[in-house]
Amino acid sequence: MVQATDLPRNEEGIATVLGLLKQRFGEKLMTGESIREQHGHTTTWIKNQMPDAVVMPQNTGEVAEIVKTCAEHKVPVIGFGTGTSLEGHINAPAGGISVDLSEMNEILAVNAEDLDCVVQPGVTREQLNTYLRDQGLFFPIDPGANASLGGMTATRASGTNAVRYGTMKDNVLSLEVVTPQGEVIRTASRAKKSSAGYDLTRLMVGSEGTLGLMTEITLKLQGIPEAMSSARVSFDNMDAACKAVMATIQYGIPVARIELLDALTVKAVNDYSKLTLPESSLLLLEFHGSENSVTEQAELFGSIAEEFGGTGFEWTTSTEERNKLWQARHDAYWATLALRPGAKGISTDVCVPISRLAECVTAAQERLDELGFIAPIVGHVGDGNFHTLPLIDMDNADEVAKADEFVGWLNDLAISLGGTCTGEHGIGQGKKPYLVKELGGAVNMMAAIKRAIDPDNIMNPGKIVP
Amino acid sequence: MVQATDLPRNEEGIATVLGLLKQRFGEKLMTGESIREQHGHTTTWIKNQMPDAVVMPQNTGEVAEIVKTCAEHKVPVIGFGTGTSLEGHINAPAGGISVDLSEMNEILAVNAEDLDCVVQPGVTREQLNTYLRDQGLFFPIDPGANASLGGMTATRASGTNAVRYGTMKDNVLSLEVVTPQGEVIRTASRAKKSSAGYDLTRLMVGSEGTLGLMTEITLKLQGIPEAMSSARVSFDNMDAACKAVMATIQYGIPVARIELLDALTVKAVNDYSKLTLPESSLLLLEFHGSENSVTEQAELFGSIAEEFGGTGFEWTTSTEERNKLWQARHDAYWATLALRPGAKGISTDVCVPISRLAECVTAAQERLDELGFIAPIVGHVGDGNFHTLPLIDMDNADEVAKADEFVGWLNDLAISLGGTCTGEHGIGQGKKPYLVKELGGAVNMMAAIKRAIDPDNIMNPGKIVP
Repeated sequence: MVQATDLPRNEEGIATVLGLLKQRFGEKLMTGESIREQHGHTTTWIKNQMPDAVVMPQNTGEVAEIVKTCAEHKVPVIGFGTGTSLEGHINAPAGGISVDLSEMNEILAVNAEDLDCVVQPGVTREQLNTYLRDQGLFFPIDPGANASLGGMTATRASGTNAVRYGTMKDNVLSLEVVTPQGEVIRTASRAKKSSAGYDLTRLMVGSEGTLGLMTEITLKLQGIPEAMSSARVSFDNMDAACKAVMATIQYGIPVARIELLDALTVKAVNDYSKLTLPESSLLLLEFHGSENSVTEQAELFGSIAEEFGGTGFEWTTSTEERNKLWQARHDAYWATLALRPGAKGISTDVCVPISRLAECVTAAQERLDELGFIAPIVGHVGDGNFHTLPLIDMDNADEVAKADEFVGWLNDLAISLGGTCTGEHGIGQGKKPYLVKELGGAVNMMAAIKRAIDPDNIMNPGKIVP
Repeated sequence: MVQATDLPRNEEGIATVLGLLKQRFGEKLMTGESIREQHGHTTTWIKNQMPDAVVMPQNTGEVAEIVKTCAEHKVPVIGFGTGTSLEGHINAPAGGISVDLSEMNEILAVNAEDLDCVVQPGVTREQLNTYLRDQGLFFPIDPGANASLGGMTATRASGTNAVRYGTMKDNVLSLEVVTPQGEVIRTASRAKKSSAGYDLTRLMVGSEGTLGLMTEITLKLQGIPEAMSSARVSFDNMDAACKAVMATIQYGIPVARIELLDALTVKAVNDYSKLTLPESSLLLLEFHGSENSVTEQAELFGSIAEEFGGTGFEWTTSTEERNKLWQARHDAYWATLALRPGAKGISTDVCVPISRLAECVTAAQERLDELGFIAPIVGHVGDGNFHTLPLIDMDNADEVAKADEFVGWLNDLAISLGGTCTGEHGIGQGKKPYLVKELGGAVNMMAAIKRAIDPDNIMNPGKIVP
């Protein structure tokens, strides 16, 4: 278990706030151990640090009340969505109050003419997309988990189709935020673009609850494409697959998704789902557009793949066939966990300039082999982003230490190649040392901003900044 | 002439800094009145406030030295690119040093495989695009003027093809910044996406030189499209034209440009360039993609335009014909100025959700008519952004006052429709009151950030924040 540092607790303030919030929120304030544990960090391997209580506000006014109460007594406030973040974002190293926003889950407006909507932070992306379907609209960002849109905004999430639609930073138009003082502000208008002052929207996106709590999110929407096509192609090795990706992006094909699975992942999926895919590097693609355009894109990609030695190229526009082609990707997470039953999958995340992707992925694979890890690699490679998932016996201290060392090594490598220590998971507790390695003196500016906006350091303390 | 408030001058500090910089930079420090006047605000109608000197650094180290010297003596530092900004961004209300970055105009790297490049801030967009052409690449943001990329970054510029390629916020990957303390930081890696801490890149983009000076800019590039098509269509009135735009965007046609010209602008262009266009609302479009796709897009748009009563629809893929179709747009600025020789064109800028565009443009047109102004309207309407250009006799105080009142009225209207007081020109001095109207308490957070990063308020004082 990787240790997360405990921070000094303000016992007196916490006791006072617990009393005040109990009085105000009754059963919506929960202090049972099991719910508190669920609201500490539960994913992957950072140790759980429970909050002192969990409160479930119903509206912005209640959030503001909670934050004001905590601010008055200098008690930590930790925003909580669905708890799917991966770097200890929701741990409470100094205790405090977990503000669970899952009951603030209303879709407040859909402005179909403007291709935008306004949601509360507890709305999940699947809930939103189910709601939008009848109107021919969708919200494209898909980080895998059915995360809350508040959490996705807070961690600057992205996922499989960021290569076409961008990340949360590109898809949030405006935010309502409760500041660390309990004031309610709006960061921007609903206009599609603006030069009106500092970009507080983008400052809040990815701030991981350290600068305020988002209570309303205005999101850009997309029309459901007229047509989609999917494609699949295998390569002898990662290098060839990555080079085909690079050429595809350079050529300007507007791929909606381009996912890389390594041979181990393909093997896992073959076993898990009784498939017969060639057990080598696999690319899966999706194209969005008009009927003509998705045909053209798939065929063009096919000819690029061939140039780089791709084999077994298949593509289709039929929904049923598309699902079959992509089954390997949908099953990848569970299939790879089944490679070593009982082990914990340590998902780590880097992103490099696409010209360095082949080098970075190949080196990672070699290093994992040297360490003797069973560790699948899956990537949103159109952006140069990939994950490794070493499967670790958490009772074996040596293995845990080696995995920890590997994560450090991989982050250093990505940074040395001009990349980032996290493409989409965020900093939380787990990546704080790498943030400093990556950005050096810029982290001082982040810390200055944090102190200016949250001088008492009550908003999610111990995350991102030193 | 609209007054910009003078701020208290630190005479002693300024005298000291002038001495130190003269010693260090010799002829690269200039104090002549005419060059100082050129480096104060020279566009539109805000009064010129000259700096005390203009200095032309050659590299990041020199910029850092200048800023450190100014910081030590608490003397204002005003970044200067090409001087084309429109809201008094480069005025020196408290005097100080204009740091003219136009000699830092090297293209430092083009990473064709990664579709990015690294430039110094004095590189202009035309210089960059000329340089890139042979490599089949281009940088899409086009604000009209041949602005410097530093200035475009500082004002979060956009322009005609933001509807497809976004604004500067979407096209800057990373920045090297000299902080108000004279430290050099880098805001991000060169990875296409990242969740590594606060988004300092986006905080700097649009900060108008108030948080630091950018000394290197890493920009996303695009492949020059395989094909382009252009189209032109007229409408009886603004309402129909705006509704056709809305439908086009909603339909998901990936238009590269969609520009609206009002009847007055078309009349001006007919006179100026001897054209015979119907003198009513005109839409001009451009589509980028494969040969098939630009044909498909143009034809699809044609059928949408017809539904909304569009007449005289023409489209073409030939370069020569495309230039002819778009001539009205290229000539619009000079043609409209010729409507009232000797008058000053007061360019103002708002942006509203596209569903409110017809209402906002129509109301603006009516109001301008009531006021008896000759005032063309041109819009980057795919984003809901438009400009009016009242032609004002600056010697007529009554007219100037009425124009000032009109600008206020239009900003209030845009804000009341859920829009912003500036889609692309920025706040500078001219829009400070409207920023507060638009974002209220959020401006306090901006001010807190400004104080944290620049506690002595030396970076471009008197701009954006109170």
